[in-house]
Amino acid sequence: MLNKVDEALFHPETDAILLTEVLHALSDPVRISIVSQLLAAPEREMPCGTFQYSVAKSTFSHHIRVLREAGVIWVRHEGTRSMSSLRDADLEARFPDLLGAVMKNAPQSEAP
Amino acid sequence: MLNKVDEALFHPETDAILLTEVLHALSDPVRISIVSQLLAAPEREMPCGTFQYSVAKSTFSHHIRVLREAGVIWVRHEGTRSMSSLRDADLEARFPDLLGAVMKNAPQSEAP
Repeated sequence: MLNKVDEALFHPETDAILLTEVLHALSDPVRISIVSQLLAAPEREMPCGTFQYSVAKSTFSHHIRVLREAGVIWVRHEGTRSMSSLRDADLEARFPDLLGAVMKNAPQSEAP
Repeated sequence: MLNKVDEALFHPETDAILLTEVLHALSDPVRISIVSQLLAAPEREMPCGTFQYSVAKSTFSHHIRVLREAGVIWVRHEGTRSMSSLRDADLEARFPDLLGAVMKNAPQSEAP
């Protein structure tokens, strides 16, 4: 997990991740799409600029923040890029089978 | 399912239940507790007046409405009583394993 986290950004410890906050984070089509794209990415990590989305950039940034603060993703800066990665191992440790059950039921649609 | 539904109240058809709305409905400690109490009830049905909760009655009614409109519960009137029941079979048909994965990870706490 070395270098996965930007210390300047809040990320909850695994033990402090709350079920209701994860469910809230996943209760939005854009955020579900972000998780879906990360699941398909190499190492489950992507530069924020490479996501597919059709909302305003500021709205997209808001969604990234909600996912980060809920404990669903890590965000770190690498030079001028912001890299997001899925905390799937942490989520599995904290809430077994939850992310899998949600994502297998997520619509396989275009990016919203 | 005869007599389970009050036709005057909106309930989505099973096919119209949305993943994001179910996740939103479950993203609150009071609503998680309502589902937990229904899972433990005979026939997964309870009169609304018998739930354990520590919020205002109007707040509780709001939570019941959110669960109903998302497709998580049925609500029907029986005389002067309002009966709530879990749509666990509908949820399982629509989103296999989702409710189980959420509820097995829900804190076994006192009613919030």
